[in-house]
Amino acid sequence: MRNFDYSIPTRIHFGKGQISKLGAEVKSCGNHALLVYGGGSIKKTGLYEVIRAQLQEQGIEVTELSGVEPNPRIESVREGVALCREHSVDVVLAVGGGSVLDCAKVIAGAVSYEGDAWDVVKDKTKITSVLPIVTVLTLSATGSEMDPFAVISNLSTNEKLGIGVEAFKPQASILDPEYTFSVSAYQTAAGTADIMSHILESYFTNEKGAFVQARLCEALLKTCIQYGPIAVAEPENYEARANLMWTSSLAINRLLVYGADVEWSVHPMEHELSAFYDITHGVGLAILTPNWMEYVRTEENLWKFVEYGVNVWGLDPDMDDHEIADAAIQLTRDFFSGLGIPATLQEVGIDESKLEIMAEKAAAQGLQEAFIPLEAEDVLEIYKLSL
Amino acid sequence: MRNFDYSIPTRIHFGKGQISKLGAEVKSCGNHALLVYGGGSIKKTGLYEVIRAQLQEQGIEVTELSGVEPNPRIESVREGVALCREHSVDVVLAVGGGSVLDCAKVIAGAVSYEGDAWDVVKDKTKITSVLPIVTVLTLSATGSEMDPFAVISNLSTNEKLGIGVEAFKPQASILDPEYTFSVSAYQTAAGTADIMSHILESYFTNEKGAFVQARLCEALLKTCIQYGPIAVAEPENYEARANLMWTSSLAINRLLVYGADVEWSVHPMEHELSAFYDITHGVGLAILTPNWMEYVRTEENLWKFVEYGVNVWGLDPDMDDHEIADAAIQLTRDFFSGLGIPATLQEVGIDESKLEIMAEKAAAQGLQEAFIPLEAEDVLEIYKLSL
Repeated sequence: MRNFDYSIPTRIHFGKGQISKLGAEVKSCGNHALLVYGGGSIKKTGLYEVIRAQLQEQGIEVTELSGVEPNPRIESVREGVALCREHSVDVVLAVGGGSVLDCAKVIAGAVSYEGDAWDVVKDKTKITSVLPIVTVLTLSATGSEMDPFAVISNLSTNEKLGIGVEAFKPQASILDPEYTFSVSAYQTAAGTADIMSHILESYFTNEKGAFVQARLCEALLKTCIQYGPIAVAEPENYEARANLMWTSSLAINRLLVYGADVEWSVHPMEHELSAFYDITHGVGLAILTPNWMEYVRTEENLWKFVEYGVNVWGLDPDMDDHEIADAAIQLTRDFFSGLGIPATLQEVGIDESKLEIMAEKAAAQGLQEAFIPLEAEDVLEIYKLSL
Repeated sequence: MRNFDYSIPTRIHFGKGQISKLGAEVKSCGNHALLVYGGGSIKKTGLYEVIRAQLQEQGIEVTELSGVEPNPRIESVREGVALCREHSVDVVLAVGGGSVLDCAKVIAGAVSYEGDAWDVVKDKTKITSVLPIVTVLTLSATGSEMDPFAVISNLSTNEKLGIGVEAFKPQASILDPEYTFSVSAYQTAAGTADIMSHILESYFTNEKGAFVQARLCEALLKTCIQYGPIAVAEPENYEARANLMWTSSLAINRLLVYGADVEWSVHPMEHELSAFYDITHGVGLAILTPNWMEYVRTEENLWKFVEYGVNVWGLDPDMDDHEIADAAIQLTRDFFSGLGIPATLQEVGIDESKLEIMAEKAAAQGLQEAFIPLEAEDVLEIYKLSL
């Protein structure tokens, strides 16, 4: 097990009705909030009114940034930064899924930098301070509600970049599974794939001594396999939504990687797909993951695929190791298909034309340090397997 | 899944050499530390000198409280409180296992109360403030390094009481697995049993919707089963010591019970054994646990024992459910015996004479709200099964 420094300070208020704690949490951070949200679904569900009432009750002034898009764009960040400066905002309140939360995080950090916000995404050392962040989650997927990460897209340069800053961990997050009842079957499936990808990126590490971390990964994967299909079929099943929501947070709050750190593989490859084609992140991950597994599988790491097959998919350990690995990868593929996710890049409108440039860009994001080091030609092969 | 409010703010520095971060952590809490430790093994191992040098480097004044005993006594707490007042201590630094840490926690809380420290153990509302606590762990067992709990004994009244206070969560804890290399085989076995009992107390809940929590429990149980015997046989096996150490923290930092809260069963029963006979806590737990399982098993909760047998012990799910439960309980018993732990109360010097009074006292500690509600006569039966 590797050395690590653990810190997960975010206060989580989980469950039905926990929104009642929002006002006090925001108030403890400041008196003027930037309320960040997406396309307005929170107005349809009534959540918007509940939140405004809570803020008003605490005497908190509110400035709004709405319309944050999926794969959030740098333009939204710039707009939020300008609003924060204009209104002397002292706390950022994000209400939505990972895109809204990520946008809010980078706003909270970029306010401290005088230049363009995109500079901050490319070089986080330009951030000198971060406004406190509070979140209300409405989609289980990215885990942004409890982690230091954000991903921002710049469509003008075809770039989608991740940034991790300790102070991006929210001060508090409200996690009410009922807020995810209205998430569509497609987005529920994509969210489940995103959660599973976060776990798999941690699970496939070369640190063999991280036994407890591997078992924790399996625990969370089994939860996704149990409840993903239920949530897709029964959107108002509280137990399914609750288990997925809490799993989404635990999958990426660093609990799984403390002591087992590894550079991620599939996320950098997918980021290029959504940077160029603006596809749904979780869908891109689901398409790439089984093909990545096929490609990186070797005799040396066969044990890991066997562990995956036996402990996660319940395969018979007495089977031949290669058969177990084959079956585990096929089960992964079938699971995502069973959730209704497209199985190929062509189905989401991606053809061969940009594979090479995307592979070049993905390989430049640290893939040489991944579970199996990947160069641009490796990424290209994985893309082709995924066509 | 039940509602919960998550908060695990303790900063953990895990791994070889992490002691280098101690000085700065203590300094961030204050300028005069009460250094609390046990029988002096930290002087034999050289840890004492390393710590004193770190504190000196930061210009931290030090007052010492040494000789804290296993099953820490209220007398040590009183002594520590007096020292804190006399020297205007502003941070408590505990170096040792759970007994030392628990003693330090109650000292940190009792300083704020003018009356006798035992009053505070019996009624935590008397605590008005808590000095910051920093710990250096030398034994993997109680999880005190990352939790809000402490257990203190009063041998004059044959009482051993638990107390949980949010501010008892340490500010920071140094977890270096190498510091546990010198722990004896017997104490390693007892520590492993203690960790497993913490997990089992959480695992046997009536909250069926807490799926992810159940899987996390199984992950940690499998880690104990994997590494307990290795650590007993090879005391300097870093991988085993590291996995047990981190598991001891995760087992009781509330990660397993958020959303699945249940009153504990075996701990209250064991506390009476060590209150009356001063036996090793983990040994008492290992003796009682399989017999508690036998006693509380019903047709209604058979599914939980089946889950335990299949997911933790790898039993064949096609076996008859009752056979799985039988086998799971027997495997639990055999595992503790295999670690070298006595299997009966008589082996640790406990006879029938005080069973009734201990059962009465145990039943008064919330056992009516446990997984299976237990009255005094139930506890008595479990004690008798354990003779």
